[in-house]
Amino acid sequence: MARKPFILLTNDDGISAAGIYALHRELSRIAEVSVIAPYTEQSAVGHAITIHDPLRVWTFEKNGKQFGHAVTGTPADCVKIGYWALMRKKPDLVVSGINLGPNTGINTIYSGTVSAATEGSFLGVPSFAVSLATYRDPDFRYAARFAARLAVRLHREGLPRGIYLNVNVPNIPEKSVRGVRITRQGLAPYREEFDRRTDPSGRTYFWLTGQKMNQEKELDVDDGAVSAGYVAVTPVHYDLTQYGFMDRLKSWKLEK
Amino acid sequence: MARKPFILLTNDDGISAAGIYALHRELSRIAEVSVIAPYTEQSAVGHAITIHDPLRVWTFEKNGKQFGHAVTGTPADCVKIGYWALMRKKPDLVVSGINLGPNTGINTIYSGTVSAATEGSFLGVPSFAVSLATYRDPDFRYAARFAARLAVRLHREGLPRGIYLNVNVPNIPEKSVRGVRITRQGLAPYREEFDRRTDPSGRTYFWLTGQKMNQEKELDVDDGAVSAGYVAVTPVHYDLTQYGFMDRLKSWKLEK
Repeated sequence: MARKPFILLTNDDGISAAGIYALHRELSRIAEVSVIAPYTEQSAVGHAITIHDPLRVWTFEKNGKQFGHAVTGTPADCVKIGYWALMRKKPDLVVSGINLGPNTGINTIYSGTVSAATEGSFLGVPSFAVSLATYRDPDFRYAARFAARLAVRLHREGLPRGIYLNVNVPNIPEKSVRGVRITRQGLAPYREEFDRRTDPSGRTYFWLTGQKMNQEKELDVDDGAVSAGYVAVTPVHYDLTQYGFMDRLKSWKLEK
Repeated sequence: MARKPFILLTNDDGISAAGIYALHRELSRIAEVSVIAPYTEQSAVGHAITIHDPLRVWTFEKNGKQFGHAVTGTPADCVKIGYWALMRKKPDLVVSGINLGPNTGINTIYSGTVSAATEGSFLGVPSFAVSLATYRDPDFRYAARFAARLAVRLHREGLPRGIYLNVNVPNIPEKSVRGVRITRQGLAPYREEFDRRTDPSGRTYFWLTGQKMNQEKELDVDDGAVSAGYVAVTPVHYDLTQYGFMDRLKSWKLEK
């Protein structure tokens, strides 16, 4: 039987979030797990890293037992400091989640949860992010079991350098889940509004609200698959180059 | 003669940085420019957006004249609030920069400068980011002139939805610039170190240092082109899907 994988587990909802705890419990059945996660919630930090400030690290307990390391930084910081400074050996996998809320469509770009998997991939470690597609009444149990199963598989199969996985799970009972779809990232834009308010001193401030327009319904798109009750697994990469446009751009002759 | 473009200009070094000022001067010759930029430096914020806090906006003066709006947020926030709330009409172009420091290779992923162009592209507006590949003794003049020339061209040609440009300019005199290369994003990993220090109270803290390993030297790679004295123009997109791996992943049969 293969050696148990050694997993660096992080998230962006913070080390005290229910999602990472549920995922830790399932991963611990199949792996040795080192939790290195943000001390506080880091939603919508994108792929931020901390350069101008020091990072502090604390041992964090849950239910009276040592659970992991809490870091005063972003999910990407956690993977970096875990890999380069805190862990006694290199991880076999980086897993990020379970995020409360979907990371589908162009939200993938804003996602701290996904950025931790990106960082793992930078380091050449097979990595995935997992998110539960709800903001209320989350039941993380099936998502955690699916993630543990995926971790075993990933440890066995590996991933080509530069590729990692973005997993989104619907918040429905396991028996209602219709299956797993390999999907592409949705590309639907958002319509956003800024609520303009006045503070007690009479000064204006703005608050962002937004909603997706024309969400894609196809089952081969992350949004569509999750809405229809499937687990969506999107293979992603960090090469942003749009190769198909290079020749066209060369014809612009920007030299002069 | 074509109508002058209307440009939303932002950056991540902050509204008082020399780079945005140099760029504003050149863009103003060919366009109507609305500056909406972070109040403070936002380096390495990635594609962060501000959800949990309000945004405040001030009119910002430079040399006794109104220069633009300063926003208590990230570059992506600036594009959003500019587009949806502050600007009287929709911009023809979003331009971000000039950043002090290169945004090449996997740094592209961490870049606040690039994230503003990504956000412009989300909105369907032709967009580009421009960075000067140095951290010291910057001379923004040629980069600013190149950016203004590119803006005119972009306004005429347009860009397919979802594609935007990441431009890096070497910090050398214009007569030494060898030309313009259409490039792909470099993929070289970093070796990072965390400097472990002790604060005056005896507590440990960490500070990140890092350097790129095996930087790619080829002239069709952003890093290589800039190092060799070329302006590097990389067409990028925000669809992270690795389409080539989808069939392989389907063969994993993750259903059970």
